[in-house]
Amino acid sequence: MVHFNNVTIIGVGLIGGSLAKSLKTTGLAGTIMGAGRSRETLELAQRMGVIDRIGQSSMGAVEGADLVILASPVGTFETAIREVGPHLKKGSILTDVGSVKGKLVRKIESLLPAGVHYVPGHPIAGKEKFGVSEASETLFRGAKCILTPTQKTDRQALDAVKEMWKAAGANVIVMDPDVHDKVFAAVSHMPHVAAFAMMCAVAELNTGTEDYISFSGAGFRDFTRIAASSPEIWRDICLMNSENIVQMIERYQFSLNRLKTDILEGDGKRLEDHLTMASNVRRGLE
Amino acid sequence: MVHFNNVTIIGVGLIGGSLAKSLKTTGLAGTIMGAGRSRETLELAQRMGVIDRIGQSSMGAVEGADLVILASPVGTFETAIREVGPHLKKGSILTDVGSVKGKLVRKIESLLPAGVHYVPGHPIAGKEKFGVSEASETLFRGAKCILTPTQKTDRQALDAVKEMWKAAGANVIVMDPDVHDKVFAAVSHMPHVAAFAMMCAVAELNTGTEDYISFSGAGFRDFTRIAASSPEIWRDICLMNSENIVQMIERYQFSLNRLKTDILEGDGKRLEDHLTMASNVRRGLE
Repeated sequence: MVHFNNVTIIGVGLIGGSLAKSLKTTGLAGTIMGAGRSRETLELAQRMGVIDRIGQSSMGAVEGADLVILASPVGTFETAIREVGPHLKKGSILTDVGSVKGKLVRKIESLLPAGVHYVPGHPIAGKEKFGVSEASETLFRGAKCILTPTQKTDRQALDAVKEMWKAAGANVIVMDPDVHDKVFAAVSHMPHVAAFAMMCAVAELNTGTEDYISFSGAGFRDFTRIAASSPEIWRDICLMNSENIVQMIERYQFSLNRLKTDILEGDGKRLEDHLTMASNVRRGLE
Repeated sequence: MVHFNNVTIIGVGLIGGSLAKSLKTTGLAGTIMGAGRSRETLELAQRMGVIDRIGQSSMGAVEGADLVILASPVGTFETAIREVGPHLKKGSILTDVGSVKGKLVRKIESLLPAGVHYVPGHPIAGKEKFGVSEASETLFRGAKCILTPTQKTDRQALDAVKEMWKAAGANVIVMDPDVHDKVFAAVSHMPHVAAFAMMCAVAELNTGTEDYISFSGAGFRDFTRIAASSPEIWRDICLMNSENIVQMIERYQFSLNRLKTDILEGDGKRLEDHLTMASNVRRGLE
């Protein structure tokens, strides 16, 4: 079984914290050091027993680490790599949990010194609640974890990261980084944008005379749950996968506009056909 | 306590069936007769003990009824009222569970004979699974039920229908029929259209080479759950509240377009501001 004596997690939030807990529970890690911007978060993580030690700086924290996990918002990755890159141990593994791959993976690869093995990853877990206080070693159980190796990826390092995710209970899937970004623009990024937009539209209706939102039912709450997600994380994802996301928003706009036209024209037959297509696909999903 | 010797339910699906079960459990109803288009559904409802008898026709089924509940899709209401109106007992109460009020309420009032007391209603319950087999007497517990009386509504009949819903466990709220249609266009009807549109957009992506939907996470599943709802019911709602729904779709389109522009222009600050507004409102919701 793979074992990492020294693990450093940069960004000890919901995902980083949950992975730390899992590494502890499964015995895959020796010492876990946490690093990140918020001293308060790191101290909380240490009190919770999620991490063993707090790194004074990211640079110092990665020195001597066998495994470094980048779990801060994707917008911070490039800066983080520029900072810690030169301090990474030769032969060590760097992985990440970012929701964007593609160009970002190529960028990170171009910045890393030779001898550091980068394995890009993206666990499909998370919830609308975030922060280390929500961390749980069971978060990844039964979840998919996508790894997006490139031609440059070291096969042994890939296997070690695979093993780590399997131990956490995830089903590992290997995918091309660019395909990853197209797929997740469609099934995750654009839907988040749509949910955020929905909340804005309804929020801006509230005039004080009628509190519309108080009449929302389970459907609305389900629909907009993901709009409670972290604005910072989603700002970064939107900007870093902008091309694919904009393309998907446009497909969505087309589809929304088509239903609006059906309604405006009072074309019940065509409207029902479109709703039936949607309903059939959705019912096949679960 | 209010008691109805003879109750007739037109449309014994999820809502009609659940209300029937509740009327039985709470002892508010004597005999419950079911009527509707599908003989098969009615026979199932009878076998399940949801209704006591099956009406051969809607006209016959309402004769002698003290309470008639219209629980078929809203698109069928006008035709149903034209058919059964002349057969309703003088002094009887007619209520409905339709998601559209406003103009539809005025239409129904104009079609009813004098001496029949119409109380328009809309329970905010339901789920994406539908049909009498999903019916449950607990469906309305803790749910809101909106009643939208007009100047013509008989106050005693209103009180009786209020009591029926309270017995079912619902919190009764009285609202103007036109305000109702604006509010529900915003928090229910437009979000359903948005979820249907989302499923269409993603479904039309599936080229067979990449099964995008299989990579969807909990967020996407939550977001699109309501798209599994009945296309027929939602076709009718869309057409009958089209003005308010189109207006809300346009507000939504504005809001979606604004986020798209933030992304296209790479304006991280403005994007984060918009996402934060959405996230704050959503987090205040539960």
